Amino acid sequence: METVRSPDELRYWVESWRLESRSVGFVPTMGALHEGHLTLVRRAAELADRVVVSIFVNPTQFGAGEDFERYPRNVELDSELLQEKGCHLLFLPETETIYPEGHSTYVDMGAPAERLEGEFRPGHFRGVATVVTQLLNLVRPDIAVFGEKDAQQLAVIRRLVRDLHLPVEIASHPTVREPDGLAMSSRNAYLSDEERAAAATIYRALSSCRQHIEQGERSAQAIRHVLREVLLQEPLIDLEYAEVVDAATFEPILKIRSSIVMLVAVHIGKTRLIDNISMEIDG
Amino acid sequence: METVRSPDELRYWVESWRLESRSVGFVPTMGALHEGHLTLVRRAAELADRVVVSIFVNPTQFGAGEDFERYPRNVELDSELLQEKGCHLLFLPETETIYPEGHSTYVDMGAPAERLEGEFRPGHFRGVATVVTQLLNLVRPDIAVFGEKDAQQLAVIRRLVRDLHLPVEIASHPTVREPDGLAMSSRNAYLSDEERAAAATIYRALSSCRQHIEQGERSAQAIRHVLREVLLQEPLIDLEYAEVVDAATFEPILKIRSSIVMLVAVHIGKTRLIDNISMEIDG
Repeated sequence: METVRSPDELRYWVESWRLESRSVGFVPTMGALHEGHLTLVRRAAELADRVVVSIFVNPTQFGAGEDFERYPRNVELDSELLQEKGCHLLFLPETETIYPEGHSTYVDMGAPAERLEGEFRPGHFRGVATVVTQLLNLVRPDIAVFGEKDAQQLAVIRRLVRDLHLPVEIASHPTVREPDGLAMSSRNAYLSDEERAAAATIYRALSSCRQHIEQGERSAQAIRHVLREVLLQEPLIDLEYAEVVDAATFEPILKIRSSIVMLVAVHIGKTRLIDNISMEIDG
Repeated sequence: METVRSPDELRYWVESWRLESRSVGFVPTMGALHEGHLTLVRRAAELADRVVVSIFVNPTQFGAGEDFERYPRNVELDSELLQEKGCHLLFLPETETIYPEGHSTYVDMGAPAERLEGEFRPGHFRGVATVVTQLLNLVRPDIAVFGEKDAQQLAVIRRLVRDLHLPVEIASHPTVREPDGLAMSSRNAYLSDEERAAAATIYRALSSCRQHIEQGERSAQAIRHVLREVLLQEPLIDLEYAEVVDAATFEPILKIRSSIVMLVAVHIGKTRLIDNISMEIDG
């Protein structure tokens, strides 16, 4: 595995693979890698001949008072894990590469970036769309792989790629979960034992709603009610949002039909966690 | 010369050239081509093996009450001119390609897009940056050529390419002028004979300032004063701005030094015209 920090070195490797007609898969990350990330790396290796992973804790997607400073960083361990999983190139851009002095260009989006995460983390998707555009332009992969755990981010990136005609295919992979259902997240490391136990409620609430829908419930309001009810039974959970939205627009819906996403954001102690379940409803 | 409307056809041609190791030059235009545009096409042909020109009158860079509807359109004549000048491919994207239903992604910039054109045409550079990003992603040229007549636009595009790491080189070409100095512009076609005669004052004012600077004037305020004085002598001219700025930031300056741009925007009747002169000052 090559480890590079400069755009020139990155370009050297990617172009040498292009000359050999190798396809390039890309997994952008903020590091603190867990099994969820590694699954994306394996998926990229299935989809392309060469795999590039980037680690960059992107300051512009963190709001004031969020956890940018304390976000877990462990590039050495990450690097070992990536090497084991068959990553060919680790790209570690410097902050000055992504945000050089005088940087003033941002990618902004209306729907699907406005609600939910967009509402509770103002500027978050602006930061995400900007850094993803830059990383895609730097790496120029054939395909990039994102996790479904960040469902709204995935919708934002699909919209970004379509709207700006970015020459890349976007693939996604289902959320990887702990045995009790908690979605893997670098932020889980912040949780105390007690908080960690409480966090399992999130997936329990989402699963309970899925079951209601499978059993025929079609009122989105009823589903929101169940979602909130289960979450609020856990005293350590401070609920931010619990919504049922259209999978394409991320607008709240009245009736459960076609492609939907149920999404939750909570605070547990000082840790903010999100999760979701997508469903396709027939007829 | 090939004429294509769809991204797929465009990609087919550009990729076939890539396979032959031909470099690709690109000149984005809004059509109504004049000698200024054709000079950019010739420049692109000098810089690259194959030349792509796009014609797209981009609605998002026109403000409310501006001349989007009446902007001159003559694709047949444009097409003939391009064929003569050695253009290899004319790209005529449909509005639905650039702004499909639900399009919601825009490229936004602070400096150098905020003042001057940015102030008097709110949203103009947002539209320019968005469409240029899309066109560059669609065409994927090695080099793109822009005219220096739109000096601030050129600075915005250079910043855009740097900040988003767009994989393209930006080249520019000096403004082409009529015998009396008026900068060539598609909008000159709007002018009556009387207005056309008055419009020559713009370049006369800029040239007069250049002369003052060459003769040693270093006060930007004095230069602004001369610029306004000459322009306001022409009763048909309604002055919008007359500024002296730093060439990199487009911020107004106090002292004339290093790289500067003198810029003018005026209304003559219903027609808005801009022009500029850049200078490099030694010592």
